[in-house]
Amino acid sequence: MITLEQIQEAASRLEGVIAKVPFQIAPVLSEMVGAEVWLKKCNLQNTGAFKIRGAFNKISLLSDAERARGVIAASAGNHAQGVAWSARYYGIKAYIVMPEATPLLKVNATKAYGAEVILYGNNYDEAYGYALKYANEHDLVFVHPFADEAVIAGQGTIALEMLAKTPDLEMILVPIGGGGLISGVAVAAKSIKPDIRIVGVTAKGAPAMHDSFYAKRPIDSLGVRTIADGIAVRDTSPVTLAYLMRYVDEVVEVDDEEIANAILFLIEKQKLVIEGAGAVGVAALLHGKVKPLNGKIGVVLSGGNIDVTMLSIIIERGLVKSQRKMKLIVTLVDKPGSLMALTETLKRVNANIVHIEYDRIGRDLAYGDANVTVALETKGAEHQEEIRRALRAEKFNFTEGW
Amino acid sequence: MITLEQIQEAASRLEGVIAKVPFQIAPVLSEMVGAEVWLKKCNLQNTGAFKIRGAFNKISLLSDAERARGVIAASAGNHAQGVAWSARYYGIKAYIVMPEATPLLKVNATKAYGAEVILYGNNYDEAYGYALKYANEHDLVFVHPFADEAVIAGQGTIALEMLAKTPDLEMILVPIGGGGLISGVAVAAKSIKPDIRIVGVTAKGAPAMHDSFYAKRPIDSLGVRTIADGIAVRDTSPVTLAYLMRYVDEVVEVDDEEIANAILFLIEKQKLVIEGAGAVGVAALLHGKVKPLNGKIGVVLSGGNIDVTMLSIIIERGLVKSQRKMKLIVTLVDKPGSLMALTETLKRVNANIVHIEYDRIGRDLAYGDANVTVALETKGAEHQEEIRRALRAEKFNFTEGW
Repeated sequence: MITLEQIQEAASRLEGVIAKVPFQIAPVLSEMVGAEVWLKKCNLQNTGAFKIRGAFNKISLLSDAERARGVIAASAGNHAQGVAWSARYYGIKAYIVMPEATPLLKVNATKAYGAEVILYGNNYDEAYGYALKYANEHDLVFVHPFADEAVIAGQGTIALEMLAKTPDLEMILVPIGGGGLISGVAVAAKSIKPDIRIVGVTAKGAPAMHDSFYAKRPIDSLGVRTIADGIAVRDTSPVTLAYLMRYVDEVVEVDDEEIANAILFLIEKQKLVIEGAGAVGVAALLHGKVKPLNGKIGVVLSGGNIDVTMLSIIIERGLVKSQRKMKLIVTLVDKPGSLMALTETLKRVNANIVHIEYDRIGRDLAYGDANVTVALETKGAEHQEEIRRALRAEKFNFTEGW
Repeated sequence: MITLEQIQEAASRLEGVIAKVPFQIAPVLSEMVGAEVWLKKCNLQNTGAFKIRGAFNKISLLSDAERARGVIAASAGNHAQGVAWSARYYGIKAYIVMPEATPLLKVNATKAYGAEVILYGNNYDEAYGYALKYANEHDLVFVHPFADEAVIAGQGTIALEMLAKTPDLEMILVPIGGGGLISGVAVAAKSIKPDIRIVGVTAKGAPAMHDSFYAKRPIDSLGVRTIADGIAVRDTSPVTLAYLMRYVDEVVEVDDEEIANAILFLIEKQKLVIEGAGAVGVAALLHGKVKPLNGKIGVVLSGGNIDVTMLSIIIERGLVKSQRKMKLIVTLVDKPGSLMALTETLKRVNANIVHIEYDRIGRDLAYGDANVTVALETKGAEHQEEIRRALRAEKFNFTEGW
C-alpha cells in the first residue's frame, strides 16, 4: 500500500503543472445539511476532472526510456483525457483504446490533447484487453485507471489540498468507481488526521464496490446502468478494495434520481457544471444518506464532463420536479371560443404556455368534447396551486400529466 | 473620482469576508483566440455575482448610526442579493424594492438573505423612485447599484486580484450595464499598469453606454431587450460615463445569439454556469469583436445567476446550432411499413429519434402521402451528412427544419 510520503511526492510533481482548484464553503448546502460543507471543485481542473493527477504522477515516475516509447490506456472518459494531457505535457506518444461505438465527441476530446485513439471492441472489456495486448506487443507502459500505486498516490493529492485549506474537516465524501480516488484520498487524510471519517459514495446502478465493501470480498456486478458514467465500473478491483477495507469507514449509495437532483442543485446554487459521478457526494448529503457530525464536511466534486444533451434532460425534468413546469389535460367543449376561455384564465394567473396539443378523437372523450394538453412554465408549488384554483373556479375539467 | 487607495481600502475591508474566486487560464479559449485568456470566475462568489463587493464596501463605510437605521436598494437581481447579504453580515435591516411583477424565485432569493422585499410599481423606474422616496421618509441610506464611489471602489477590487495573480495582463474585458464594475476595474488596473487596455462589452439590446461612449455624451435607450438581464440598463449614468471617457479604451457590442453561444461554451469547456451579462466578454472574444494583442487577456465573468429555464433553452438551441440535433420532414406513402423503413434507415446510421410527429392532412401533401417530422440526436456535422446520404440512398424525400 502507498504511504503519505508517496502522495506528498506526487503533490510536488504536480505543483505548477496542474490547475489549483478551489475548496470553498457551500452556503446553501451547509444550511440545508446543518453542518459546514466544503466543496473541492475538480471540474475546474485541466481536462475537467481529477484523473489528470494520477495519470501525470504515473508518467512522471517512468524512466526516460519508458516515456520515449509511449504510454497506452483504455478509457473513453476522464482517464483517457488525463493520460493524453499528461503525455502531451511530456511530449510523448499516448495511445488510447476506446470501444468502437464510442461517441465521436469523446473520441475528439481525447484527440484534441494529441493522443492517438484506437477504436476496438464492442465494450470496455474488449478495449481493455486489446490495450493490454497492444502494450505488450509494442513495449508500452499501460496506465491503469485505478489499480496502480502511482495513480492512487496522484489522486490522493486532492486530500492534501483539502486539509491544507481546512485542517479541521471531520468527514470527507468521495465518489467510488474503480476506487482509485477514494484510496488515495483515504490514505492521505487518515495519515494526516487519523480520526477523520472517510465515506465513499457509489451509484446504485453500479454497486460492485458497495457490495464488496460490506461483504468484505470482491463481488462483481452483472451489469451497470447509471447516469454517473464516470463511476459505472462493473468489476471490483481487489487492489482498491484492500484500501477501502483498511481506510474507509462507510460506503453509501445514491440512485439516478438523487444524482440528477444534485446536478441541478449544483447548477442553481453553486453555478457549477458537475457530471453524475462528481455529484454523488452532494446527492448523498441532500438525500440524508450520510449523518453529518458536528464538524466540517468536505466533498470531492470529481469532474464536470457531462454531455450537454444529458444536462438538458436533467434540467427539464428538474423543472417539472421543482414545480416550475406543469402539464394539464383539460377537457373542453369542441367549439369556437373554448380554447380562448382556457387561455384567458391561464393568462390571468400568469402561467406561460410553452406547448399545446389539441385532440378530439381520444377513446375516453364524449362526442363533442376535446382534450387540450398544455405545458406551462410556473413559479413553484404556490403558483401551481393558484392555477388549479383558478381553473376550478371557472369549472374547467382537468387532470395533470408528468 | 475614486483613487487606487480607495479600492485598496475596500479590498482590506472585503478580506476574509467574501470568497476568494479563482482567476484561471482557459486552455481551449486561449487556443481559439490565439492569446492566453484568463477568466475571473465571479459566479463562484457568495450570492453568485460580484455585486456583493460594492454593496459591502458601501455599508462598511456608513456610520454606526446609519447602519443601525438600515439600508435600502431597488433591484430584482444581483445587486439586491449583494445588499441583502452584506446587511445580514452586519446584522442590520435591508429593504429591497422590486417591481410588482418580479418572479417569485427572485423575491425568494433575496428574502433568503434576510432582506425585507417591498413589491412596488410596474417597472424598475417606478420601484427605483419608490425606494428613493422610502429612503427619504424613513431616513435610510440608499445603496445605488453603480453611481456611487463606495460601490465603484468595491467592484474595483476584482482588478487588484487579477493583477496580483497575473501582473502582465495586457487587456481586461469587462461587461457594462450601469458601468460601476468597469469604472472600478478601470481605475484599479490603469493606476497599477497605465498601459493596460480596458475594453467594455455591452449587449446590443442595451446600447446606452456603448452609444454614449462614442457620442461622448449621455444617450439613453428607448427600451432594452437582451438575455443579459444583468446589464439591461436603459439610461446612461453621467457618473460612470465620466469614468469610461477617462479610463476605458474601447467599448464593443455582442448580440443575444453571441451571448448564448458564449454561455454554452462556458458550460461545455469551462464547466461553469455563467449568466448572460457575465458571458459577454467571452462572447466578444469568440466572435472576433476584440483584437487580441500579443499578451495575456483577462476576462471578468461577472456572475452566474441565470434562470434554469433560460439555460435549458440556450442548451437546446445550442445543440441544434452545433449540429447535435436535427429535424427532418420526410414524405412517406401513408401505408403500413413506411415508417418502419424510415426508422430502420435511421437506426443503421445510429441516429437517435427524440421526437416524432405524423401528419397526413397537410395542404401540400398528395393524397395517399404523409409527412413525418422526426427530431434526431446527432453527433455533429459529419454524422448529419451521413444521415442525409443514407436517406438519399434509400430514395427518401425529405426537407430539414429548424
